[in-house]
Order: sequence, then C-alpha cells, then structure tokens
Amino acid sequence: MESLDAAIAAAGAKAYVSYGSSADADMRYLTRFRTSDPLPFVKIRGEPGRIIVSQMEYERAARESVAVPVTRAEAGLTEILKEEKNRWRAYARMIANLAGGDVLVPPQFPAALARELEAFARVIVDEDTVLRIRAVKSEEEITAIARVQEATDAAMGGAIASIRSARVKKGVLYRGRNPLTSELLQREVAVTLLEHGCRAVDTIISCGEDTAIPHVRGSGPLREGEPVILDIFPQDEETGFTADMSRTVVRGEPSDRIREMFEAVLGAQALAMTLVRPGASGAEVHGKVVDYFRNRGFESNAKGFIHNLGHGVGLEVHELPILGPSGGELAEGNVITLEPGLYYPGTGGVRLEDMGVVTAGGFRDLTRLPKELRV
Amino acid sequence: MESLDAAIAAAGAKAYVSYGSSADADMRYLTRFRTSDPLPFVKIRGEPGRIIVSQMEYERAARESVAVPVTRAEAGLTEILKEEKNRWRAYARMIANLAGGDVLVPPQFPAALARELEAFARVIVDEDTVLRIRAVKSEEEITAIARVQEATDAAMGGAIASIRSARVKKGVLYRGRNPLTSELLQREVAVTLLEHGCRAVDTIISCGEDTAIPHVRGSGPLREGEPVILDIFPQDEETGFTADMSRTVVRGEPSDRIREMFEAVLGAQALAMTLVRPGASGAEVHGKVVDYFRNRGFESNAKGFIHNLGHGVGLEVHELPILGPSGGELAEGNVITLEPGLYYPGTGGVRLEDMGVVTAGGFRDLTRLPKELRV
Repeated sequence: MESLDAAIAAAGAKAYVSYGSSADADMRYLTRFRTSDPLPFVKIRGEPGRIIVSQMEYERAARESVAVPVTRAEAGLTEILKEEKNRWRAYARMIANLAGGDVLVPPQFPAALARELEAFARVIVDEDTVLRIRAVKSEEEITAIARVQEATDAAMGGAIASIRSARVKKGVLYRGRNPLTSELLQREVAVTLLEHGCRAVDTIISCGEDTAIPHVRGSGPLREGEPVILDIFPQDEETGFTADMSRTVVRGEPSDRIREMFEAVLGAQALAMTLVRPGASGAEVHGKVVDYFRNRGFESNAKGFIHNLGHGVGLEVHELPILGPSGGELAEGNVITLEPGLYYPGTGGVRLEDMGVVTAGGFRDLTRLPKELRV
Repeated sequence: MESLDAAIAAAGAKAYVSYGSSADADMRYLTRFRTSDPLPFVKIRGEPGRIIVSQMEYERAARESVAVPVTRAEAGLTEILKEEKNRWRAYARMIANLAGGDVLVPPQFPAALARELEAFARVIVDEDTVLRIRAVKSEEEITAIARVQEATDAAMGGAIASIRSARVKKGVLYRGRNPLTSELLQREVAVTLLEHGCRAVDTIISCGEDTAIPHVRGSGPLREGEPVILDIFPQDEETGFTADMSRTVVRGEPSDRIREMFEAVLGAQALAMTLVRPGASGAEVHGKVVDYFRNRGFESNAKGFIHNLGHGVGLEVHELPILGPSGGELAEGNVITLEPGLYYPGTGGVRLEDMGVVTAGGFRDLTRLPKELRV
C-alpha cells in the first residue's frame, strides 16, 4: 500500500489509524475482513496494517484478513480496561501505544475517538487517500466485480424474459391470473441474485410516468407500450464488491418519442465508450455526451440528460472516479459505469448502463446483455 | 424526543447535529429516512429535527421522514459551495448557520466535519443518548419488530422442516440425490425471508463440532445424530428493524450429553423469562443464569456458557440493553433476546434464543416456534 505510506509521510505522521466495521468500505478495503463489529486498524508507515480483534475472531481474521490480526489482550486493551472505564479513552490509549507517534485518520473517523487520541498524539484528518487508492482496481478485484456483473446480467435477463413472456390484457402485463408488478420482478431479481451469492439493493423496476424520475423504485402493474427501466446494483455477500447495470425495455410498441430517446441514449453510450481511456477527464467525457445530446435536440438541465454520465464501482456502488462536471482524470484499472439517460415528465425516461474497465486500450465492457428496446 | 432535548441542555448546547446515511442506526432512528447518501441532521433544542436533502429527494423525505426536510438550496449550501471548495467546510458552515450555537454530536460523528465545525461553534461529543433512547421501543416499533420475528419464525420453521424431512444415508442428510448442506439451507432461509421483505444477514446453520464455536456460520452436509444450531437475524428492508432467533435440533438420536445440555439450556431460558422485569438488572439476570448452570455442573469460562445471556434488538441486531456482566437496568419497552447456550469442544453446542418485550408484567415472548431437540 505505497500510496497510503506516502500520505502518512506527507502528513508528517507515524501511522494511519481507522476504526469501523466492514460496512465502512475503506475499512473493508484495508482489511478485507467482514465484520459487523467496529475494529481499530493501525498501520505504521512501511509496515503492514494490523487489526485489533477479539480472541474469538482471531483465527478467522488470520485466515481472511489482509491485515495482521492482533488480539485485544496482545494489544494491551485488556490491561488498559482495568484502569480506564471510558471505552473511547481505552481504545485511544491502546491505539496510541500501537501507533507510537502522530496519526493520520480518515474523514469518517469517529469524533469521540479522535478527541481522546488527541491527548496522546497529533491527529491529522486525511482527505480521500483510501478512496483514491480504491478507484484503481487490481486484476483480482476486477475478477470479483466481473463475477457480480455476471449475476446482474443473469437477474436482468430473467426480469426482461418475464416482461417478454407476460400475457397482455387491456394494456396490462399479466403472469397467469395476476398482474406482473414491479414488486414481483424486484423480488425475482433478488432471488436470482441470492442464488449467485449476491444481495439486491433497492432494485429499480419502474414503468411509464415513473421512469421520468431516475430514483423512483417503481410499483404496481407493468403496462404495455410504456418504457420500463430496470436498474440493478447488487453487492456480493462474500467479497463486498458491487456491480451496476440498467436497461430500458418496452413490451409491445414504443411511442415514437421513446424510440427516438432510446436511439439517442444508445448512441451516447457508444460515443462514451470510444472516449474513455486512461488520462481522459471524467468531466470532458461527460461534457462531450452533453454536446452529443444537445446536437440531437436533447437538453441537460431540469429535463433531458439530468445526471452524471457515470461513476466508479467497487466496494461501494458509487465511488471514484466521477464521470460528470466535477470528474478528474481516468486511470487504467478504474471500473466505471457509462449510463446516459434522458428524462421527460409526461413522456418517461430511458437509461442504458454498462459497467466496464478502463484499460490501456480504452473501455472493456463487463456487461453482456444486449440492448433492445422492444421485447 | 424529550431525552435528546435534555441531553442538548445538559451539554450546554443549542442543537444536536448528526451526519450519516441510514446505515447509521442512530440516523435512521432520528430520521426514519432510508438513504445510502449521508445527510446532515440538525435538531435545535425544543424544535423538530431537520434533514438536509437534495432537491431530488425532497418529496420522498417529506413523505417518509419524521424529520423536516430542507433542500440544500434552502439550507444555503448552494450559495456556500460557490465560495467554499472543501466539502466538509461547506457543510460545517451550513450546519453552523442552521444550529445557531454550540452543538452536541454523537460519538460516531465524522472527525473531518467536527474539525471544521469547531471554527464556528463549540462541539461537544455525546456518549450514548440516542442509543439509550432507542433501547425503549414504542408500540409501533414493537409491531415492526414482531413482523420481522414472524418472518424469522417462518424461515426457521422451514429450515427445521427440511432437516426433519431429509433422507438419511450413512449418517448424512440428503434431499433427493444431493446432501442437505448448511449453504443450501442458508439460501432457503434467505429466500423465505425475502418473500417477507426481509434480508438475511450471515445466517448460522452449523453442525457437529462447528456448533461448539458460537459464531461459526457452518458449511457442508448436515449429519444425523449431531446438533445443528440455526441462528437467524434478519433485517426488514422497509423499516430497518431486526429480529434474532436460535434453535438447536438433532435429526435422529442425540447423544446423552447433548440431551443433557439441551435440557439445561431450556431450563436456563425458562428461568431467565421469569427474572426479566422492569427494574431488574441485566447483570443480575445474567448472573442468575450463570449460577443456574453452575448448580448443574456447567461452567461459564472458556467452556460452557461463554457468552452473554442476551441483548437489545431494534434497528441494530445488537443494541442496548445488555444482559451480561456489564448490563444495566431493564426498562418497560426494551426488546431483548434470551439466548443461553452451552459449548464444549469435542461435544458441540446448544443454544436457544427467543426475542421478546420487557413489559410491566415481565417478559412477553415474540417468538412462536416450539423448542424440540429431536426432529
């Protein structure tokens, strides 16, 4: 972890200290240890990181974590707790002993622990070192993300097949005697993901008017001739890595306007795929897609293309880099989405989202499922 | 939220300020707003709490949150961001404007934001006010938790039925031609929970030797004549509330020792249920169960009854109160588990866990499924 060492040095600190459960993606990244109990992580510059775990968790940590596990007793906590009733102060004393000097902490470091640590060392609050390190994926990480994408493709394929094979009665989609609803498909997506060891998070399957608002999850029966946006972004239970994918389909005949929007979005995504390469700026790529849309008569303000072109994907479904107005340089090893969309109240929305890797050669798509509007 | 006002007053502060997504159970409690994006929460003493949301989230927040939503523009953030590049400093300025005086923050408040806020106000770090408020549940919250428990009972019942109906061949349980494994049952539990709108978290289905270590999740084929511990603790996707439940079963004939342990654990749980009442101390109830076990020849150190008797359950599966050596007074409205267990390497483990409410009359069990060792 060279860049973390560099950040410790630049801060004039001796060690980097973090505290959290694996729900904190930085902690999960640094430790690769899945835990619901918050743990301290202490990394002295030039040395491997250590995590302080209970005796009960030691063996699992030794097996699973990339950090070196140290039991609370070994770390001196058991002794300290005999004198120190306040839990944060006890942790601070233990951490100060382990760090042996000034510490760099992440922005999300608990204020209570920072306060107590200040009695023992200078506490420097970092900006986004680990977030930036996380943005560049190793081959192993890309493999883990690709596995989540496979599950996502399978779930998406299943949901679209259900829309395709539904019976249509008076403009409403049915399966057997029951209307085919957003909720039903969301549940099916969740079950498919589960079979692949992944957890569905807030899957969007919206229809008609609802598709004009990107974050509406959707509810009720799906309807013929109206756009259905499916946006699936699960997390692998085992590795913590995520994927992100969207498709827009219409069962039956789309309106001319939706068809036009779909073609424009498809073109925008194809364009973006040619623009992505190491060194390109996320702001620039986004800007060129805005231009592309404008040239076709689609605005990018309160209507039209109203969100960023994409974002990094990793242990969090939204992480660096940003492909939007504030986006910086793309780098080889980034895993990003390209998800242009168009949204018009009264008409509906269209979004197409693929996820792929920024490679020396450009963009390597990890998404397999084809993009067809009519199903 | 009277007690929060009292804490603000006791700290000599003007407002309570928090910052996080709904993954932070305190935030979820204070806002009842489900969000993966971290938000600021600002509550001036005597006034309702406010959350600062994006324009896009405003409507949903107004519909779902118990806090008053304020858009970033209304809160002045849009203007501040024109002058202030550092995001934490911009948030600090906005929060300071909204709070209008010194602020009390939770222990997990981000250090970066605390540092920036210190330029505008005194920042006092709270101990556990919200955690303590959360420990006493309203009728509505108890109903939400009971609903999760129903789903848990259903999933547990299904898993035990699968063990009961398995075919046994050479000491191994089979379903059809395939061994019935921990992983298979864990997945089935997850699917059942999903059908109830709940998410399985790290379900334990362990067998034989593995049952002697309480936190081992279990893997591989289940076996005849050996204890199987099932521990299910899901979260309701909608409300965020959790439940927690364990059973121990043996397919076929248990050993005499496991039978003896099961009887002791059953008796310990029955005893605990009679001891729970408002005003009783969690440490005392735990201690009496330790005594009960000791009188029957079961120790409570490295072997035997090696964990706490129970814990509070709510938006987190482990929260206050504690039923263990450090446990304080129980109060009406606590939702707690009673989960005595015995663990002996070489023999295995037995745990029985019910979840219920501390009422004026004692303990009202929310768990329905019977406790039978042999299935």
